[in-house]
Amino acid sequence: MHDLPLNPLLVQDAVARALAEDLGRAGDITTMACIPAGRPAELVIASRGPGVIAGLSLAEEAFRQIDGQVRFEAKVADGAKVERGTVVARVAGPARSILSAERVALNFLGRLSGVASLTARYVERVAHTKARIVDTRKTTPLLRAFEKHAVRCGGGMNHRFGLDDAVLIKDNHIAVAGSIAAALRAVKATVGHMVKIEIEVDTLAQLAEVIDEGADAVLLDNMGPDVLREAVAMIDRRMLTEASGGINLDTVKAIAEAGVDMISVGALTHSAPVMDLGLDVTVG
Amino acid sequence: MHDLPLNPLLVQDAVARALAEDLGRAGDITTMACIPAGRPAELVIASRGPGVIAGLSLAEEAFRQIDGQVRFEAKVADGAKVERGTVVARVAGPARSILSAERVALNFLGRLSGVASLTARYVERVAHTKARIVDTRKTTPLLRAFEKHAVRCGGGMNHRFGLDDAVLIKDNHIAVAGSIAAALRAVKATVGHMVKIEIEVDTLAQLAEVIDEGADAVLLDNMGPDVLREAVAMIDRRMLTEASGGINLDTVKAIAEAGVDMISVGALTHSAPVMDLGLDVTVG
Amino acid sequence: MHDLPLNPLLVQDAVARALAEDLGRAGDITTMACIPAGRPAELVIASRGPGVIAGLSLAEEAFRQIDGQVRFEAKVADGAKVERGTVVARVAGPARSILSAERVALNFLGRLSGVASLTARYVERVAHTKARIVDTRKTTPLLRAFEKHAVRCGGGMNHRFGLDDAVLIKDNHIAVAGSIAAALRAVKATVGHMVKIEIEVDTLAQLAEVIDEGADAVLLDNMGPDVLREAVAMIDRRMLTEASGGINLDTVKAIAEAGVDMISVGALTHSAPVMDLGLDVTVG
Amino acid sequence: MHDLPLNPLLVQDAVARALAEDLGRAGDITTMACIPAGRPAELVIASRGPGVIAGLSLAEEAFRQIDGQVRFEAKVADGAKVERGTVVARVAGPARSILSAERVALNFLGRLSGVASLTARYVERVAHTKARIVDTRKTTPLLRAFEKHAVRCGGGMNHRFGLDDAVLIKDNHIAVAGSIAAALRAVKATVGHMVKIEIEVDTLAQLAEVIDEGADAVLLDNMGPDVLREAVAMIDRRMLTEASGGINLDTVKAIAEAGVDMISVGALTHSAPVMDLGLDVTVG
Amino acid sequence: MHDLPLNPLLVQDAVARALAEDLGRAGDITTMACIPAGRPAELVIASRGPGVIAGLSLAEEAFRQIDGQVRFEAKVADGAKVERGTVVARVAGPARSILSAERVALNFLGRLSGVASLTARYVERVAHTKARIVDTRKTTPLLRAFEKHAVRCGGGMNHRFGLDDAVLIKDNHIAVAGSIAAALRAVKATVGHMVKIEIEVDTLAQLAEVIDEGADAVLLDNMGPDVLREAVAMIDRRMLTEASGGINLDTVKAIAEAGVDMISVGALTHSAPVMDLGLDVTVG
Amino acid sequence: MHDLPLNPLLVQDAVARALAEDLGRAGDITTMACIPAGRPAELVIASRGPGVIAGLSLAEEAFRQIDGQVRFEAKVADGAKVERGTVVARVAGPARSILSAERVALNFLGRLSGVASLTARYVERVAHTKARIVDTRKTTPLLRAFEKHAVRCGGGMNHRFGLDDAVLIKDNHIAVAGSIAAALRAVKATVGHMVKIEIEVDTLAQLAEVIDEGADAVLLDNMGPDVLREAVAMIDRRMLTEASGGINLDTVKAIAEAGVDMISVGALTHSAPVMDLGLDVTVG
Repeated sequence: MHDLPLNPLLVQDAVARALAEDLGRAGDITTMACIPAGRPAELVIASRGPGVIAGLSLAEEAFRQIDGQVRFEAKVADGAKVERGTVVARVAGPARSILSAERVALNFLGRLSGVASLTARYVERVAHTKARIVDTRKTTPLLRAFEKHAVRCGGGMNHRFGLDDAVLIKDNHIAVAGSIAAALRAVKATVGHMVKIEIEVDTLAQLAEVIDEGADAVLLDNMGPDVLREAVAMIDRRMLTEASGGINLDTVKAIAEAGVDMISVGALTHSAPVMDLGLDVTVG
Repeated sequence: MHDLPLNPLLVQDAVARALAEDLGRAGDITTMACIPAGRPAELVIASRGPGVIAGLSLAEEAFRQIDGQVRFEAKVADGAKVERGTVVARVAGPARSILSAERVALNFLGRLSGVASLTARYVERVAHTKARIVDTRKTTPLLRAFEKHAVRCGGGMNHRFGLDDAVLIKDNHIAVAGSIAAALRAVKATVGHMVKIEIEVDTLAQLAEVIDEGADAVLLDNMGPDVLREAVAMIDRRMLTEASGGINLDTVKAIAEAGVDMISVGALTHSAPVMDLGLDVTVG
Repeated sequence: MHDLPLNPLLVQDAVARALAEDLGRAGDITTMACIPAGRPAELVIASRGPGVIAGLSLAEEAFRQIDGQVRFEAKVADGAKVERGTVVARVAGPARSILSAERVALNFLGRLSGVASLTARYVERVAHTKARIVDTRKTTPLLRAFEKHAVRCGGGMNHRFGLDDAVLIKDNHIAVAGSIAAALRAVKATVGHMVKIEIEVDTLAQLAEVIDEGADAVLLDNMGPDVLREAVAMIDRRMLTEASGGINLDTVKAIAEAGVDMISVGALTHSAPVMDLGLDVTVG
Repeated sequence: MHDLPLNPLLVQDAVARALAEDLGRAGDITTMACIPAGRPAELVIASRGPGVIAGLSLAEEAFRQIDGQVRFEAKVADGAKVERGTVVARVAGPARSILSAERVALNFLGRLSGVASLTARYVERVAHTKARIVDTRKTTPLLRAFEKHAVRCGGGMNHRFGLDDAVLIKDNHIAVAGSIAAALRAVKATVGHMVKIEIEVDTLAQLAEVIDEGADAVLLDNMGPDVLREAVAMIDRRMLTEASGGINLDTVKAIAEAGVDMISVGALTHSAPVMDLGLDVTVG
Repeated sequence: MHDLPLNPLLVQDAVARALAEDLGRAGDITTMACIPAGRPAELVIASRGPGVIAGLSLAEEAFRQIDGQVRFEAKVADGAKVERGTVVARVAGPARSILSAERVALNFLGRLSGVASLTARYVERVAHTKARIVDTRKTTPLLRAFEKHAVRCGGGMNHRFGLDDAVLIKDNHIAVAGSIAAALRAVKATVGHMVKIEIEVDTLAQLAEVIDEGADAVLLDNMGPDVLREAVAMIDRRMLTEASGGINLDTVKAIAEAGVDMISVGALTHSAPVMDLGLDVTVG
Repeated sequence: MHDLPLNPLLVQDAVARALAEDLGRAGDITTMACIPAGRPAELVIASRGPGVIAGLSLAEEAFRQIDGQVRFEAKVADGAKVERGTVVARVAGPARSILSAERVALNFLGRLSGVASLTARYVERVAHTKARIVDTRKTTPLLRAFEKHAVRCGGGMNHRFGLDDAVLIKDNHIAVAGSIAAALRAVKATVGHMVKIEIEVDTLAQLAEVIDEGADAVLLDNMGPDVLREAVAMIDRRMLTEASGGINLDTVKAIAEAGVDMISVGALTHSAPVMDLGLDVTVG
């Protein structure tokens, strides 16, 4: 599997904000009132359905920030396929601290595991082809780096992380720039040598223009399998090819078989249902 | 409809962070390279399917923070039901600024409208009963206030905003506290007079204990319609009643007809698919 | 006593800002110049008068943030009644670190102990009645959660923590809404089921309107003991009763004896004199 | 009067945090529910007792941050002496915005005016002498710059703002450094030429040592008027003289008449009661 | 010239921090004491030597944040070549505000213009070749985006902005990975399709390995012109070529003439002397 | 040498921001892809030329924040004179963590050591006189406290840290205030007793005015050695004397010999070239 662990500084910051959001000014008043200060507890985080785990470091950080005495022991790693009932992690320490951090930990872990699980389903559908499933910038605001990590956990590959790390010329850019050639030339004259350039086309006529000008990759938008096949043939390996636009679990197989290098799916991050995870007391 | 607009200070902060996440260090290099500095544009944000709009103030703020010269004119208000093709807003101003802020604006608006739209579907199913659809704390980390606003836009009602603004005694609290009576008494002795107290029960035997001790509300967890009906009768209006636990669009109607006051649905915020919205150039 | 410890994340944040405020850009230049780097010291924090301690976790955090090697050992707990000369804590470690953090630690501890001590005096005056002393939102900006904790340490109870966790309809709201009935109905139609509703009345006529509409609590503003007694009788346990308005140590007893449930006192947090505490070198 | 207005960047930051503290996640739910969106109102902030005003820019900023449409018109300036009933400011604009910001605005204004008013009482007692009333670092954490401004508004003068902008060698420093001479020499060898040096002495014997070594100012700690007079004579204008230690409104006159240049009073900032101010609707 | 203006959100944040750094707690006490509140002034920022301007938006933002009434009128644009005495900008408004912001404005403008000016000198030396001058990650901490902008203003091109937007495999990576082939294969299997890959080589033997494996660019470290020429021939346009390592104004011409595509120079950002700029009162 | 260590809270904050700047959203993708998770390494930071070290605590903090398991062992202290090849520190721990933090650590250490080294060269030129080399406010934005520390490491002394900790009346202030006397009197009437006052003069006539009014220090701007000598004689030890204005390594000796107390040099912080330091793998 991939090996790009999450930047721990981003994890610390997001978890601190999420805990502040949940604890508010007065903190977990239910737990503080019901549970004595020194009381220990042990709990397990278990999967309530099949899927792929992502976000364990965020869950661990939530418990750690609340109380350095809580021990979090992951029983699987990010990227692991789990079944209903798989124990994902054990958490032991002061009962108050564990219960206060529970929801934040599970909200991160469930959401990111949901992204990883959906990604894995797409990846599985195209496993017999060379096509890679890639994400988009249609991510949850403030959670992009985590969701892109979850996509990798599910076997997907990341498209650009933001507006600044690669060029993607879209239809609106072309419209305002005047032409594909104008847009590509402007970009090449401006950006540095370490920046890749991709451009979106809607038609094979546009594609021919792009081939003339040259780019690192081309996004073939809203094309059916037959047109994609034709586009792939026209490109003839001179650029990477990416299919995009309303692709779902039903259509992704045919798209992949058309021979594209990448298939980008916004739903991976904008519409993945949560993975159901529970935190249950085993001793406490 | 409801009338609890979003706190503008929270909107400013979240949008600033989301823009920083998308723009990174170098900013929107594609747009800057392709589009001349002074070029004006006009665009419309239009719905690509039916649903309920939520989050317009976040979208507006995204454009405003990038460039005070962009004019954002909402054509509908939060809570509006829209159809495929409805124009949601018009955006006019420097083309560069609009395109740089587009994705952040749409990511907020699409996600929150997705929450509102799913909520509205639940609300519609129970409209013939007195039951209100309410949310949970299973929200996207860092977006809770916005998602709870979206639930209100869809016709739902908000459960507590965090661990600090109301008491909800859950099974784990009862287990550690020793008994329902112990937990309720500890809470009543501790929290202030402006804090409401709700307690979760799994059985009618537990419910009887709660009735003896008294509380503001009781969460009836994972009970089917028949047991709920019995519970409602036992309570006899002495407490508010909330049904919870794996309720979906198929089961919600029967649950509501059992006579509960509230039905809480985690999926409203943790599994709502995005609402599809487009930003299209009309002049540019 | 109460058992709602301070949220450690709020403590960390406030202490970090307070240290930055005191240390500025160049740090504690006096201490750095006068005292060699490795020099150890032991000091005691002692009370210079009677009172109730609050805020030990903030004092400890101040030393800890400056230097993880400083050991802070509290000799009493928050809520403890102390006399002149009581040792509150021992602090041992590098002399430089202790002296650099001293003022911030004492500023928090002295101020919050002042709030707790004043609260305890009010509580003592009404101990023979059922009345609870409660705070208000007239707190020091940026220190609300800490001051509300100090009120609990002094035996008081907390009113709402902010504008968002409960409803309190005041005279200005009624004036603009048009009537008590209009205000109460608007609120009930809007806020969630976990939010308590209190309303302020100035006269018994207003009170009668409130009784007709119903609310969780009523704030009886600026009424003398006789009118309060009449109000309490009218309400007849249907709502919680809170007396408020210019109540001081001289008048609080008679107010309490009128039978109200709560007495709110702004002075607890807006005018409590500091508790005098000293940090004295014992070895160093 | 003085002319050192508050740094607007500090004002913006503190007000933003104070509003966040009060508004929480859901905002002012009472006001939003009771008062229609477009409703205008006019209010006056009036003094309910005599005193000196300080902090108007913080109050104005609170309204401004909530809503740029609110107009805040100060009728007096910081430093103004007011009587019971004096109109301090007029506030006009959307009723919702004004009521949501009211408490934060008044909490700042009341607290800082309390500091200014108490300072003015001390200043008045020593007006017939050359002594200046100065503050200390015993300020409210996170509000130091504002409280020092309030001291100036009351006619006082500021001591150092933090540990970094001047040297003050205290008893603990001398104890650890070994002697007055050692401490003063270490400091002079270390700090820059733009940093003033003051040293605390408890006895005239210590004072003689300081005179031998030289310093910019000497803090005469816990000395009665007679000893102070002797100390002033010994110093003979070679250093500034500051009396300190438990001075109150009863003792300050005699201290001042002993001939010191400055009298520092911790109570100015750590124990000033709030100034009572009201916000009343005039039109709304 | 280039057309990648600075991200305004980064500008706002850095300027706010720089002003806080300079103003501290008490603000510009000299200016506040000397200059009356309403006094207007007009000043010009003029160059005191030849060079290339960069950073005007930061200077403007400094004045704007202090006081929205200050008018800043740039007389040249970023990237402009100026001579001794050229008026760079006119600043008019309240004298207090202008003087308080002056140093922060000039510190940004002088430093960034220094980077642009030094870059321009390198660019000029290689103008007769195809080689582009590029920067490195040896930038001033916290100012990277601004310094990279300054490099573009001087006619240079940007290398990667951070560790995340492109791959650069260095000697240490190769050493730990085991071989060039191992490092390149690991990277290609891990990073997304929009990420460019560059690798450092010290010898022509290493270069041969890289050519076998393939990469987007190769960094030829510490090679003299003759070896570089040989390397360029070996590569034969299959990868971009970058010369690096201790190149200075004396050696850059010969390096460029060896035929490389890029020459990276750490000194552009780590050792550029400031550009001397003055702010002089014209009316005030 | 001096003994004013860096405020650790400032160090933590600056390093956290610098790491965020370098790591971006996706982190060090090269290192993560090339180097296995558990792989240990040992490296040395060595000087590649002579100079004076400053900033070790920032370098150490960079490694520590990335990974608490990295051990950083300084082999010299801040202020140490080093030669080419001197080992400055050893770093051991997970290879990934060390390589990810390397550039941030070296960027701080190299830049600050550059400032210290340049300062030391100035200090050496005037070592036979009483003159001290002092810095200015022409520092790198956001790095002032660190650069002023580096100046001390090089044997220099610090001028004021910001606009708030001392008064420096410049030509523009005098121009607007009307006269030297007006400016000095306004300042003396306003600022506290712990604030030193310095004033800039361009001519001996202005100096005479200053002598009449009195100040703590006088800045003698742009005067040659002969005029300086005359000025020093006029002042006759009644004020500290500071020479300033375009002084460089060639002219500083003659300036110092004119008898001034301080010589301020902006170039120490605005134009010091970086010190060249390398991080080389010894085991890994």
